[in-house]
Amino acid sequence: MNKLKNDFKNTSNPIGIFDSGVGGLTVMQQLVHTLPHERLIYFGDTARLPYGNKSSETIIRYSIDNTIMLLEKNIKLLVIACNTASAFALPKLRQLFNLPILGVIDAGAEKAVSVSKNLRIAVLGTKGTIESGAYQKAILNLSKEAYILPIACPLFVPLVEEQWLDHPATELIIHEYLAPIKQNEIDTILLGCTHYPLLFSHIQRAVGDHITIIDSATTCAEQAAKMLKETNLLSPIKQGRDQYLVSDDPKSFQKHAERLFGQHQVNVELCKLSI
Amino acid sequence: MNKLKNDFKNTSNPIGIFDSGVGGLTVMQQLVHTLPHERLIYFGDTARLPYGNKSSETIIRYSIDNTIMLLEKNIKLLVIACNTASAFALPKLRQLFNLPILGVIDAGAEKAVSVSKNLRIAVLGTKGTIESGAYQKAILNLSKEAYILPIACPLFVPLVEEQWLDHPATELIIHEYLAPIKQNEIDTILLGCTHYPLLFSHIQRAVGDHITIIDSATTCAEQAAKMLKETNLLSPIKQGRDQYLVSDDPKSFQKHAERLFGQHQVNVELCKLSI
Repeated sequence: MNKLKNDFKNTSNPIGIFDSGVGGLTVMQQLVHTLPHERLIYFGDTARLPYGNKSSETIIRYSIDNTIMLLEKNIKLLVIACNTASAFALPKLRQLFNLPILGVIDAGAEKAVSVSKNLRIAVLGTKGTIESGAYQKAILNLSKEAYILPIACPLFVPLVEEQWLDHPATELIIHEYLAPIKQNEIDTILLGCTHYPLLFSHIQRAVGDHITIIDSATTCAEQAAKMLKETNLLSPIKQGRDQYLVSDDPKSFQKHAERLFGQHQVNVELCKLSI
Repeated sequence: MNKLKNDFKNTSNPIGIFDSGVGGLTVMQQLVHTLPHERLIYFGDTARLPYGNKSSETIIRYSIDNTIMLLEKNIKLLVIACNTASAFALPKLRQLFNLPILGVIDAGAEKAVSVSKNLRIAVLGTKGTIESGAYQKAILNLSKEAYILPIACPLFVPLVEEQWLDHPATELIIHEYLAPIKQNEIDTILLGCTHYPLLFSHIQRAVGDHITIIDSATTCAEQAAKMLKETNLLSPIKQGRDQYLVSDDPKSFQKHAERLFGQHQVNVELCKLSI
């Protein structure tokens, strides 16, 4: 099959990011921070969320749709901000499309392996992400000697959604989930869910400063910067505004994004996938 | 449109129950308890869950599919154990099908209004159920003087799923959510989610014995018994075993059901909707 071609070799072209919903905005925020001169287009596939409980075939199909839509916006780099889509669809998208593509899982796994001194790494994620084994596989691909402690933390997303970050219940829950960290001599924690960066400082406080916490959002933005630099695709100056596209009700997305991330200026447009 | 007819006037015919997943098993358990001579067929539409974040048109379409499938099993009574489907699809199903149909919302609302002395009723539910206003409408339809305190408790389902019923974090979260109960002089709490009966005793302990807690599961089973008695459709003796049908992986449903409800004998079959 011929790769779908995109005229991405232009520094002024935007970076495309997709996720199933608002979670990927943590990745978007890091990209804005790390690459202030880049124009970004975020797509939240809110009409078809959640991705976490769907089959790999379906996730691949959705990811192809999302990528084609963003390619039509002439993106020069695609960032998959969704853990499920990164786990299931990244190889297929790289095979199909003639475009540099980054996923949160590989980015997080590479950083964790490079900073861990004893290669004892805990991966925190939703039940779906942990059960998929995607982070575990990505880490073992990079280092066969790594010891991985996977911890499913299904209460973290609802706690973040409730904005109970400083609630005593959240502290208790963090301590309960992270109890195995100490006894397993973990030195690096990888946050394998786009919502978890909002709990970064709370998790750091619970485990102590001697443990390094990697969040996929920051790591992914660093990798994007590196990739654009290496391919001479860094934009010298920001041209135009960032865009937020969603496949279902923009107002509901806007409200959700504002509540979680305090993004009051977000301009969100409906973008029905015609594929 | 002519109503689809079903030969339901036979005492030995089973009762049909549907929900989007495992939650409705709390209703199933109460039906087993209240009506030990009835044969029950449970359908969990696990291929299409969750219902909570989908449009009313979609929920109505799914509910019609589920009802037709259960009608083909010659059910004599349909119990909608799903809050979302009860809220959106009950009137349409009653209009279409020539069959007695009960929903968890009406059953819960009727019981709450009948037991409350001061008509000050708190409704606990997921964000979707509370925002739909379905319980609020059902209560006000029964009594215009009722004061309703709706409380969204989005952490309850994940806490139940984690089986952290006796965890100190759960106690803190229950107290936080239920803080407005006292200051609003509530005398009756209506549990508007199929998962919440598993937290019944914990909620009772938090609010005190002077407050009556109504759970829709128990109330729905009582209404089913009353309806079958009034229509002379009570089965004199149980004929055959209860059935559990799901539209996606039976093993995953079985595991989930066993974990939450300790139902080790559950025999679950795949039932693809051909509609």
